[in-house]
Amino acid sequence: MGDEVILLNLWLSPYGMRVRIALEIKGIKYENREEDLSNKSPLLLQMNPVHKKIPVLIHNGKSICESLIAVEYIDDVWNDKSPLLPSDPYQRSQAKFWANYVDTKLYEIALRFWRTEGEEKEAAREEFLECLKLLEEQLGDKPYFGGNNLGFVDIALVPLFCYFYTLNLYGNFIKEEQYPRIISWAKRCTQNDNVSKSFPEEQKFKESISQTRTNLNKE
Amino acid sequence: MGDEVILLNLWLSPYGMRVRIALEIKGIKYENREEDLSNKSPLLLQMNPVHKKIPVLIHNGKSICESLIAVEYIDDVWNDKSPLLPSDPYQRSQAKFWANYVDTKLYEIALRFWRTEGEEKEAAREEFLECLKLLEEQLGDKPYFGGNNLGFVDIALVPLFCYFYTLNLYGNFIKEEQYPRIISWAKRCTQNDNVSKSFPEEQKFKESISQTRTNLNKE
Repeated sequence: MGDEVILLNLWLSPYGMRVRIALEIKGIKYENREEDLSNKSPLLLQMNPVHKKIPVLIHNGKSICESLIAVEYIDDVWNDKSPLLPSDPYQRSQAKFWANYVDTKLYEIALRFWRTEGEEKEAAREEFLECLKLLEEQLGDKPYFGGNNLGFVDIALVPLFCYFYTLNLYGNFIKEEQYPRIISWAKRCTQNDNVSKSFPEEQKFKESISQTRTNLNKE
Repeated sequence: MGDEVILLNLWLSPYGMRVRIALEIKGIKYENREEDLSNKSPLLLQMNPVHKKIPVLIHNGKSICESLIAVEYIDDVWNDKSPLLPSDPYQRSQAKFWANYVDTKLYEIALRFWRTEGEEKEAAREEFLECLKLLEEQLGDKPYFGGNNLGFVDIALVPLFCYFYTLNLYGNFIKEEQYPRIISWAKRCTQNDNVSKSFPEEQKFKESISQTRTNLNKE
């Protein structure tokens, strides 16, 4: 019997993109269902009653919420190919540390950058760039955070990074020459079929980002 | 060769308590080293250069930061007894979901409750109690969230819950009769040797909580 895999999603969600990339890497057939967040489906409310948020992975009728937990679940269940997390406990813990870093610190700073003005914005900008430096050090000379292949940290970071990088078109504060490694890492990732298939069409994405930015500035 | 296990810690940290409980359950000998957070040790700065925070687990010279990541690491490495996380991928994902819920939502609400006044405080109080109801439903009739034994969610929750419950002595908003299951769960946990050994002496804890509360009110 085949597996039934459904993803409740929103096309521009970087968290949804994470789950899609993991499913693509593992070669799992799935149905992507777009949610209207202003009118959430009964299925979404039933499958994520606590947070009522996308993405939700539904595997044979059972739901897994929170993007990184879903990515780890995918790695646990479909463990016969393309491991996303290292099997060594220490390496595993380090991958989780950096994914958690992306999820909490980097995201919080980026949000602060886009929502504030003046000195606060400048402080957030500095902090954000320090985070990028730290991530560059972690990447080192490896093609991916996961080594020779895309792994857990890459999946956690690439959708958010591409968001910021696109937003950056309006702010121009990530200077390519200062972050050569992370910029080429991002290009390498987005040229990967499993990533590009999981990302929205570029023009549509830019238009949406532009709209989001306008809304943020209104708040 | 024996394992060298060191915990950089602060006696009243609920996050440090999590790691201690996991080490006790697994029967691992370790050295608890108290940090002075106003004068952090060179070892702490070296072992957690990113966040510079306790707790840090050091196993044979390698550091694992973030309490839940450390608990999972302990479960991965010492996997021959007392499993903390279920082996089934779906059950595992659910344990991680609830631990993450405790770490983010419950903590954020509780902090809001203690730091605000008036309507905001009342809204946080309502939200906090709703979270407790949700956790009670999850617990159901089981002795522990982990089933018959203390597991990952119990370890994540019990130190924070005991904190709130002690703080509650001053606010009296968690009414025992309304939350019978979670209150008896907490009592069951604190009577467990592995938990009680990892908790500070009660009087010292209450005095410190009282001081913390005074400081919070001054902010």
